[in-house]
Amino acid sequence: MPSAHKTGTLYLIPVTLGESAIDFVIPPEVKKIIHSLDEFIVENEKSARQFLKACSTPVPQSQFLFHVIEKHNPVQENKLFFQSLLQGKNIGLMSEAGVPAVADPGAAIVKMAHEQKIKVVPLTGPSSILLALMASGLNGQQFCFHGYLPIEKQERMATIKKIEKESAQKNQTQLFIETPYRNNQLLADLVNSCAGSTLLCVATDISLITEKITTQRISDWKKSSVDLHKKPTVFLLLSK
Amino acid sequence: MPSAHKTGTLYLIPVTLGESAIDFVIPPEVKKIIHSLDEFIVENEKSARQFLKACSTPVPQSQFLFHVIEKHNPVQENKLFFQSLLQGKNIGLMSEAGVPAVADPGAAIVKMAHEQKIKVVPLTGPSSILLALMASGLNGQQFCFHGYLPIEKQERMATIKKIEKESAQKNQTQLFIETPYRNNQLLADLVNSCAGSTLLCVATDISLITEKITTQRISDWKKSSVDLHKKPTVFLLLSK
Repeated sequence: MPSAHKTGTLYLIPVTLGESAIDFVIPPEVKKIIHSLDEFIVENEKSARQFLKACSTPVPQSQFLFHVIEKHNPVQENKLFFQSLLQGKNIGLMSEAGVPAVADPGAAIVKMAHEQKIKVVPLTGPSSILLALMASGLNGQQFCFHGYLPIEKQERMATIKKIEKESAQKNQTQLFIETPYRNNQLLADLVNSCAGSTLLCVATDISLITEKITTQRISDWKKSSVDLHKKPTVFLLLSK
Repeated sequence: MPSAHKTGTLYLIPVTLGESAIDFVIPPEVKKIIHSLDEFIVENEKSARQFLKACSTPVPQSQFLFHVIEKHNPVQENKLFFQSLLQGKNIGLMSEAGVPAVADPGAAIVKMAHEQKIKVVPLTGPSSILLALMASGLNGQQFCFHGYLPIEKQERMATIKKIEKESAQKNQTQLFIETPYRNNQLLADLVNSCAGSTLLCVATDISLITEKITTQRISDWKKSSVDLHKKPTVFLLLSK
């Protein structure tokens, strides 16, 4: 990717989705790029250090420079993060899990990079949202990711109804997530709110040894017993 | 992933997005799984054979069995595809480019697999949609993929306006694609239809040596000259 830029490149570095082997989700050339870096903008320094260690990076841990994203005010706090990039050094952006800038605070950093005409290169790795969509068998031609649904009961039920209706109107797969300790409650709310014919995919522990992906009608979920407590899960819904 | 199933596993196999090195986008353990298979359900036999060759699979080409998806009637035609799976053999599902079952006809096959209680395992690889979203700097917490916009001019303009409005109302990144020889026309339509303050990311040749990803306001696109003709491109829009 030749460039007239004198600025560095911001590499978007995927990390594992939990305790999975690096070689199951990270391509060799991506690993090489990771090995070439010693400065990172990260969501979480501890998990970033663990990932780099698991990647067998040749850079000693003491030589890493980490900039931790201030989630609640990414733009104001993070201008200093770009000094090295503007001086021509390549640096990496890393999420706590999966690919950066999707369902995490990294997008604000990427936006700032574009504003400063810094080259952004996304690297291939695991995304629980994308892997869940692939494996769901639901519509992959039109889909919508909503992030977290509202916590408050009435509001949540109303949102589920609205999402289900939109899914039918637009033939659109609806994806959403929940804080893992509230997963069982969300599944119960879905089973209680949605039509029996609506398809629901529950994709748990994606890319891990315990991965479980089930797509069935709400009427079948009513008869199923499943424990999602504290397990990272993507929910996908399609109503016809 | 231990299982009580006696049926085989349907592996969802990602392929390159064009002429990119396998090692840039396919993890080593995914390659090992590919090497273990000799039967595939594919969107396009020719491109599947080329990819398997580039993967240095040990299986001779003459020993492969391919089932080609009938795009316009995937469900009726494809029941025979599952014979081996039901007899306990693992097989692979492959798209023409990128990951299967997203923006291609593969999802119908995955849905049938779930209906027959066949285990589905999604494997990590390149998705132009996901990579474009990561690299856009636009909202990765809420986003919507629309596939192709309508071709008819009036309808297309109306859809662009509707999508832009929804983006502002829901703070939602809107993603869409076009047949590559119509990309320049779509860009012109976007520039002519959207508000000057709307952010547009044009992500071209993702993961290839010619990759180019630019995010800027419509008012800046008005001043830009860019040729997207016949280059695979993802368009992303965010209006505030």
